[in-house]
Amino acid sequence: MRKAVVLLSGGLDSATVLALAAGQGYACHALSVDYGQRHRVELDAALRVARALGAVEQKTIRIDLTAFGGSALTDGNIAVPTRGVQKDAIPVTYVPARNTIMLSLGLAWAEVLGARDLFFGANAVDYSGYPDCRPEYMRAFEHMANLATKAAVEGHKLNLHTPIIAMSKAEIIEQGVKLGVDYGLTVSCYQADAQGRACGVCDSCRLRRAGFETAGVADPTRYYPTPE
Amino acid sequence: MRKAVVLLSGGLDSATVLALAAGQGYACHALSVDYGQRHRVELDAALRVARALGAVEQKTIRIDLTAFGGSALTDGNIAVPTRGVQKDAIPVTYVPARNTIMLSLGLAWAEVLGARDLFFGANAVDYSGYPDCRPEYMRAFEHMANLATKAAVEGHKLNLHTPIIAMSKAEIIEQGVKLGVDYGLTVSCYQADAQGRACGVCDSCRLRRAGFETAGVADPTRYYPTPE
Repeated sequence: MRKAVVLLSGGLDSATVLALAAGQGYACHALSVDYGQRHRVELDAALRVARALGAVEQKTIRIDLTAFGGSALTDGNIAVPTRGVQKDAIPVTYVPARNTIMLSLGLAWAEVLGARDLFFGANAVDYSGYPDCRPEYMRAFEHMANLATKAAVEGHKLNLHTPIIAMSKAEIIEQGVKLGVDYGLTVSCYQADAQGRACGVCDSCRLRRAGFETAGVADPTRYYPTPE
Repeated sequence: MRKAVVLLSGGLDSATVLALAAGQGYACHALSVDYGQRHRVELDAALRVARALGAVEQKTIRIDLTAFGGSALTDGNIAVPTRGVQKDAIPVTYVPARNTIMLSLGLAWAEVLGARDLFFGANAVDYSGYPDCRPEYMRAFEHMANLATKAAVEGHKLNLHTPIIAMSKAEIIEQGVKLGVDYGLTVSCYQADAQGRACGVCDSCRLRRAGFETAGVADPTRYYPTPE
């Protein structure tokens, strides 16, 4: 069985990507990153999802990005926007260089494992305008990665897979439902509470909720009462 | 004053780069990474060097790469080679994707600070054959970085500076001596002891010692007795 590293946040997108990779016959090594995110409870979800979808292994790596801050997800003084998704600007939930850091960690683990495949659940359609979710960024990362490692120098090129990058949220959900993903296990909310319940009004919640509606799939998300 | 992030390991190369950046008038924010390296004592040196060379700030970020292993520097079961530098192979002191991870952290901090300059002490001449020290890798990282961030999307491109990449170790030392670097503060040895004393026989020690000899500069390194 070919090995793959799958970045797994515990949210809807990466759970679907794990199911896709497993469905393609990869032995999946799931990598989660505790970067001090506000919604750290997603990491509990990552564990549940990895188990449910048959990952052969799951690791959580800690790196404290609150030391830098600069995002509503890593600085408690910056509020998470809840008034609706703005399509024309990069929101304050963007975490500087986060995807580059996470992909770099995936690259490291892939090299140690001897895996040539790295899966990442970036999405450039129903997303929040993050620069490090765009296809041109992914191509540049893959190119850089294939100059960075001993494995690449020795001819073992890394393939960066972003299978849902061009899908709408509804299409992602339809795909995951076919593969048997239990989205009730996942946490997408940027300000989920300690029980993993969602606010319903942050960008991540709005995109997810609309995805279930469009897909005609019952939304299994547990929401907490909001003062909205 | 323009801000710059300078990756600072505590070794000879990065100390020289910090001196060069400071000499060019940058307000230097020094970033060190505690990745579980065997020679973690280099981080004490990083603090001393940052202070001595007038960095405006120094941060140490922790990320445990021993969770992956795969290198003599991050796996206690893999011995550090001491029989001489082999120029034809990448040695076991190569740490998978380490430079990519460290540069990604530098990219993150640069974006939060509003710095457009990132300095890195990679060297492709008197080095140990690491793929992520080559100029083509550096260009690929810079290209990727300028697709990754909100800052780049808004037109604030990042410049990755590798001012010593084409210098010999002796040239680096000559440069540093001119700039007043006290190399007695630095630690290069892969298996330095708790006092920061060097083994004298690992690749890093050999390259450093030969550099001082060629430069005709007295070697300030403190060595511990080895069984060699």
